[in-house]
Amino acid sequence: MSLSDLDEPVARANERALDLLFTSDPVLIDVRPAVAVLPGMTRDTVLTSGPPLPWPEYTGGQREGIIGGVLYEGLASSREEAVRLLDRGEVRVGGCHDFGCVGSLAGITTASMPVLVVEDSASGGRGFCTLFEGAAPDRLNYGVYNAGVQRNLEFLAEVVGPLLSRVVRSAGSGIRLRPIMERALRQGDELHSRNAAASGLFLRAVLPALLDLDAAQARVLISYLGADDYFFLRPAMAASKVMADRMYGAEGSTIVTAMAFSCREFGIRVAGLGPRWFRGPLPEIETARLLPGRTRDDIEPMGGESLITEVCGLGAFAQAAAFPLESYQGGPDAMVRRNLEMYEITAGEHPAFKIPFLGYRGTPAGIDVARVAATGITPALDVGIAGRGGGQIGAGSFRAPLRPFTDAWAAFRSQAATPTPTS
Amino acid sequence: MSLSDLDEPVARANERALDLLFTSDPVLIDVRPAVAVLPGMTRDTVLTSGPPLPWPEYTGGQREGIIGGVLYEGLASSREEAVRLLDRGEVRVGGCHDFGCVGSLAGITTASMPVLVVEDSASGGRGFCTLFEGAAPDRLNYGVYNAGVQRNLEFLAEVVGPLLSRVVRSAGSGIRLRPIMERALRQGDELHSRNAAASGLFLRAVLPALLDLDAAQARVLISYLGADDYFFLRPAMAASKVMADRMYGAEGSTIVTAMAFSCREFGIRVAGLGPRWFRGPLPEIETARLLPGRTRDDIEPMGGESLITEVCGLGAFAQAAAFPLESYQGGPDAMVRRNLEMYEITAGEHPAFKIPFLGYRGTPAGIDVARVAATGITPALDVGIAGRGGGQIGAGSFRAPLRPFTDAWAAFRSQAATPTPTS
Repeated sequence: MSLSDLDEPVARANERALDLLFTSDPVLIDVRPAVAVLPGMTRDTVLTSGPPLPWPEYTGGQREGIIGGVLYEGLASSREEAVRLLDRGEVRVGGCHDFGCVGSLAGITTASMPVLVVEDSASGGRGFCTLFEGAAPDRLNYGVYNAGVQRNLEFLAEVVGPLLSRVVRSAGSGIRLRPIMERALRQGDELHSRNAAASGLFLRAVLPALLDLDAAQARVLISYLGADDYFFLRPAMAASKVMADRMYGAEGSTIVTAMAFSCREFGIRVAGLGPRWFRGPLPEIETARLLPGRTRDDIEPMGGESLITEVCGLGAFAQAAAFPLESYQGGPDAMVRRNLEMYEITAGEHPAFKIPFLGYRGTPAGIDVARVAATGITPALDVGIAGRGGGQIGAGSFRAPLRPFTDAWAAFRSQAATPTPTS
Repeated sequence: MSLSDLDEPVARANERALDLLFTSDPVLIDVRPAVAVLPGMTRDTVLTSGPPLPWPEYTGGQREGIIGGVLYEGLASSREEAVRLLDRGEVRVGGCHDFGCVGSLAGITTASMPVLVVEDSASGGRGFCTLFEGAAPDRLNYGVYNAGVQRNLEFLAEVVGPLLSRVVRSAGSGIRLRPIMERALRQGDELHSRNAAASGLFLRAVLPALLDLDAAQARVLISYLGADDYFFLRPAMAASKVMADRMYGAEGSTIVTAMAFSCREFGIRVAGLGPRWFRGPLPEIETARLLPGRTRDDIEPMGGESLITEVCGLGAFAQAAAFPLESYQGGPDAMVRRNLEMYEITAGEHPAFKIPFLGYRGTPAGIDVARVAATGITPALDVGIAGRGGGQIGAGSFRAPLRPFTDAWAAFRSQAATPTPTS
C-alpha cells in the first residue's frame, strides 16, 4: 500500500480527530482524592510520568519520588521498607496516562492526593491532574521527599483540596477552562511554562463562589491560588488530557494523543494506534536558563507529562503568545521561528487558541506523525528542568526525538496494509 | 545663543526630569468626591479635557458633556438653564490639568464625582481621575447625558466610590500602582487602549481588603471592577498625571509633561516651560477600527487626556507589549515599527516599564520637544474614538501634530537666550 493510497482516508480521519479536539469543552467540576476518581486507582498504587517502565528501571529523582509517594501514603514507615514493597510488587507503579491523569515532572500521584477533575462537557470524558505543590524548590515532583514536602502535601490534601472542591462545586456547573485558556493566550501565557495570566483569570472565575466561604478560609485559598503564578498549569494539563484523549475516537488518524517522558525514555501515542507507546531517547535541550551556579551537567531528567499541552496546540506551540519567556527561549525571533515551524507538522490550526502576534492565527494543533516523519521536524517542548539531587533548577525549550514518530508512522502504514477482519 | 550652547545644560535638565519620572511611586490612597480633593475645585465648576477654551468654543459632544455635567450636579434643572449659566459664567468651565486631574475623552469632572486619589510616595504629589463609567455606549464622557447616564453616575458616586474608598484605605498604605503596571506590560496591556490584565491585577491587589466587606458589598464592587476590562485605565491615568507632573521640578528641561486635546485643539506642556500650553491642530488618524456601519466621517473629536500615559512611556509608546490590539493598530509589524520610532524622540528608556518582545527593553520615555522638532517624528497616540451624536464608535492609533512641539522648542530657545533677572 503506497502513501498516496493512505492519503485520503487518513486526511479524513485526521479532520475527525481535530474536530474532536477543537469541540472539546473542558470544565473543572471537582477536586477529589485520586483513589476516589481515577479509574483503576488503588491505595497501593503509585503513578508516575512517562511510558511505564518496570520499577527497577526508574532511577534518580523519579525513583526517589516514587519512594516518597509510598512513604507519604503511609504504606511503609522507612525508605528501606518502601523499596522492599516496590521490589516485591506489593506496591504497584503505574503510568499516569493509563489512569486517566497526567503528571507534572516526576508526576507522582498517590491515592490520597487531591486531583483536579476535568470533564469534557461535549463527551463526558474526564482528565485528572494533581495540584501544584507551590514554588518551594523541594517538591515531591522534583524528586524530593522530606518533612517539609510531607507537610505541604498534607496541607494540599486536607485544606486546599477540600476548599477548592467546595468552591468549584458551588459554582453551579463548574469552571469552564477553555475561555480562561483562550484569554490567557492574549495575556502572555502559553499555558505550559507560563501561566501567570491564567492563574489570575482562574481566581477571578472562582471569586463569586469564594465569597461564600468564611473570610479565613477564603484567605487561605486565595493565598494558595495567588501566591505563585503556576497554579493554572495543572488545570491546563488536566484539560489538555481530556481534550487529547477525545481524539482516540478518530480511528485511522495519525495525530498524536500523548507525549510524555520518564527518566529514561520519551514516548508518544497516536489516535489511530490506541494506547501503545512509541518510545525513543529523551528530548534534547535547544535553549534553557538555569539557576545561577548550575550547568547543563546538573540537569537530571525525572519525567514529565505536561507536554500534553503541546499535544493540544499550547506550550511551545504557542510560544509567540508568550514573549515574557524570551530570556530562556532564545529571544523573540527564535520563539516566532520555532512557533511557525510547528505549523509544518500539525494537521490544523486551533479555532479558539490564537496568537495575537501572528495576527490572531490559530495555534498549530494536531501533531501528525506522517508530517513529522516526512519533514524530520519534531515537536518543540517547553519544560521545567530538575537538577541532580532534586529540586527545580531552571526551564527551557526542548526538542522531541524523531524515532517515536517514524516508528509510529511505520506501524501505522503496516497496520493499514493489514486487512482487518471486518474489511 | 546657538543650539550647541544649550546642549549640555538641557541634557542635564532632561536627565533630572527622567530621574523624577522614573523614581515616582504612584499609590492609590483613596477615592473621594472631586470637590473634596481637587485643588481649586468648587461646586460650580465643570472640568473638561484639553488646553482650556472659552466656553463658547466648545462644540458637539464636548459641549454636550459640559452641559450634562451642569445638569448632573443639579446646578440647573433644564438644558436651557444650564446653557444660560454657562453663557453668563455662573458655572465656570476649567481644564482638568489645571486642577491636578486628567480626563478620559471629554473628561467631564464635576464636584460630586468620585475621583481616584493617587499620591506619589516619593514626593507627596497627587494626581486625580474620575472612575470608568462602564462599557455602555452612552456615557457622559462620550458626549451623552440622559436618565441612564445619570443613574450610572449616581451609582458610581453613591455606591462604587465609597466602597472602593473603604477597600483602598483598609489596605494599609494604599495600593501601589507601579508594580501592577509593570506586570501588566508582560500580560498584553499597554495601559491606554488595553487594560485587561491590569484590571485583573488590581482586583487581586484589593482582594484581601475586599474580603472585609460584607459579601453583598463585595459582590457589587467585584462586579464593577471585573465587568469590563477597562477599569484600570483611570488608575493608570491618575498615576501618569502625578508621575508627569513631577517633571516640572526639572528646570530647563525640554521634556513633555502633558499632551491633551479638546474638540478643537491639541496641546502640550513642557517641563522647562511651566503650565503654558503649546497648541496645534487635532491629531490625525493613522489606523483605526470602527464599529460596523461607521465610517471616518462619523468620527467626532470630543477631547482626551488619556495621552498622559504616552507622556510616561505607556500607550502607543508600549504598543509592542500589546499585540492583542493588532487588529486596529495596523498589525504586529506596524506596531513594532511605531514603537521603535518613539525611541527617536524620547530622552530615555523606562527602567521598570519593559517590553518583552523587544528583549525587555525599557519603553521609550520622556518625549523631548527638541528631538521631535529635529526629526519631524511626532508622538503616536492610542485613543478611543467618539462618534457624531455621542457614544464610542471605535479606537485607533493617532499622530500628534508637529506644531506644538516646534513652537515649544522655539519658545524654549528664546527663553534660554533671554538672561533671567538672577543671572
